[in-house]
Amino acid sequence: MNILIIGAAGMVGRKLTAGLVANGMLRGEAIARIELVDVIAPAAVAADGIEVVTRAVDIADPSVAETLIASRPHVIFHLAAIVSGEAELDFEKGYAINLDGTRYLFEAIRQAGKSEPYCPRFVFTSSIAVFGAPFPDKIGDEFFQTPRTSYGTQKAIGELLLSDYSRRGFLDGVGIRLPTICIRPGKPNKAASGFFSSILREPLVGKEAVLPVSENARHWHASPRAAVGFLLHAAEMDTSVLGARRNLNMPGLSATVGEQIEALRRVAGDDAVKLIKRDPDAMTAEMVDGWAKDFDASRAIALGFKAESSFDEIIAIHIADELGGELPK
Amino acid sequence: MNILIIGAAGMVGRKLTAGLVANGMLRGEAIARIELVDVIAPAAVAADGIEVVTRAVDIADPSVAETLIASRPHVIFHLAAIVSGEAELDFEKGYAINLDGTRYLFEAIRQAGKSEPYCPRFVFTSSIAVFGAPFPDKIGDEFFQTPRTSYGTQKAIGELLLSDYSRRGFLDGVGIRLPTICIRPGKPNKAASGFFSSILREPLVGKEAVLPVSENARHWHASPRAAVGFLLHAAEMDTSVLGARRNLNMPGLSATVGEQIEALRRVAGDDAVKLIKRDPDAMTAEMVDGWAKDFDASRAIALGFKAESSFDEIIAIHIADELGGELPK
Repeated sequence: MNILIIGAAGMVGRKLTAGLVANGMLRGEAIARIELVDVIAPAAVAADGIEVVTRAVDIADPSVAETLIASRPHVIFHLAAIVSGEAELDFEKGYAINLDGTRYLFEAIRQAGKSEPYCPRFVFTSSIAVFGAPFPDKIGDEFFQTPRTSYGTQKAIGELLLSDYSRRGFLDGVGIRLPTICIRPGKPNKAASGFFSSILREPLVGKEAVLPVSENARHWHASPRAAVGFLLHAAEMDTSVLGARRNLNMPGLSATVGEQIEALRRVAGDDAVKLIKRDPDAMTAEMVDGWAKDFDASRAIALGFKAESSFDEIIAIHIADELGGELPK
Repeated sequence: MNILIIGAAGMVGRKLTAGLVANGMLRGEAIARIELVDVIAPAAVAADGIEVVTRAVDIADPSVAETLIASRPHVIFHLAAIVSGEAELDFEKGYAINLDGTRYLFEAIRQAGKSEPYCPRFVFTSSIAVFGAPFPDKIGDEFFQTPRTSYGTQKAIGELLLSDYSRRGFLDGVGIRLPTICIRPGKPNKAASGFFSSILREPLVGKEAVLPVSENARHWHASPRAAVGFLLHAAEMDTSVLGARRNLNMPGLSATVGEQIEALRRVAGDDAVKLIKRDPDAMTAEMVDGWAKDFDASRAIALGFKAESSFDEIIAIHIADELGGELPK
């Protein structure tokens, strides 16, 4: 089993790598090789019996994609993206990485298949940003894609290409529309959704966090642990049941900022909650208001994808996976 | 008023040109210039007081788009496309024209807007091929885009780009998802949907036609006259009511092949119907089965778009517009 992870230096990529190395297997086969690439070289990973290759690449460079599939990986995880806030601020960069970079990968795979049979499983991380307000109370599996960000547009286009290349037999794609990942560990990134994590992550360790939207703002969440589970299941699932509909709304948890804060209060007390500072920001509020708030993800659940059912559970996962199992004294 | 029509040599392009010249006005202004381009040079058109320019261009050539908008047209009609059957047979050509060619146009407009304000009305002809089976009985305005052809994929991507470029203020786009145009005059083209027209058009003038699908096959139709009406209305409508949702299912008529044939019988008699020869074709039948059959196009109707309500009416329009008002004796 030979695996390629594009965007391996990011948070989800690192956790996915750790999960694969811990399992040692994918799709019933021992993992022999993992190639980890990102715009900066991912950290090397110790893995007995697995050849781990790390490389810095720019997927917007048209010559790169061919080198990424030179070893004919059996499973490709494509996690690389310019995030929503940055793609909104830098129109050209967003299209270059999120659209062109993705298309170059698909094309390199198609070209490779011309000389000898090659049809890798391609797991594409899409986003609920493919949807745009106004929404029904719960977004169903057949709701239309009308993104209100360039990032969402680029992801929706990636999904369409993934489906068409799969239908034509060039690759075996699964697109997974991730909820916002919460609690995202580490430092804030440029995603406009970052505050959903920081208002929990920072107070849990006694630090202040900024809340730029109202407590009534509702959003759709899943933990990093759930996200890795989605990716592994997308790599292993039987795709013959997907037909031409290769892109799936992942399950998640719908919660308001107020509900997040009450879960924080239950876990870490009033003092933690007091560390959340209100600083309303109109641009962030407008973007968040244009995002999906709740889903009926029946199809993905029926296909075996699983997420959390409460923010207490999401906070507990963060404490277990990031804080050594307990809050700092 | 300066107008650019891309794909002007095609049937709809020629009728649109004739309609514009006949009106002499668009958006309340006298038409001063019309540029007609296509992969072959469109025929020159006599038009008193209007400068008519015709050119052969290849929109898949990255250098062409800039030349098309050099005169800063106020309204751009983009009708050019590799049709469904051909885009399915020639994967690379379909993507080059339908995706890259469209994107080059959008990009040229965005670049032009950097030096001085420029935000043309851009009318994009999309297609019901953005949808893929299985369908509800009637497809509503919020049904998701899961095309089952490369053509439909390319149109769906064009729509997403149109919306994003409109949202960012680079252009003022309206995407119209045309029903299958019926009765298409002239010779058959390479579209897999061509038989829907030929089974009426040919028998009306005493010629045989081939029916490759069953009489139960249901499809979604509008006349060429309705299509021109959609385009003109899309050019003139107030787009401020569209918000971020720039792409519209056009109204149309849902009918089975059997219902088409019965309308033909009413208009032209049993002898005409006998000229339809059954020759089932599995590839065509499979493609048609993957296309949309019926719509609730409430949004477009509320916005003022109008289509026919019976096949008798569609046949009458063909006789009026193509056959001089009466059937040959």
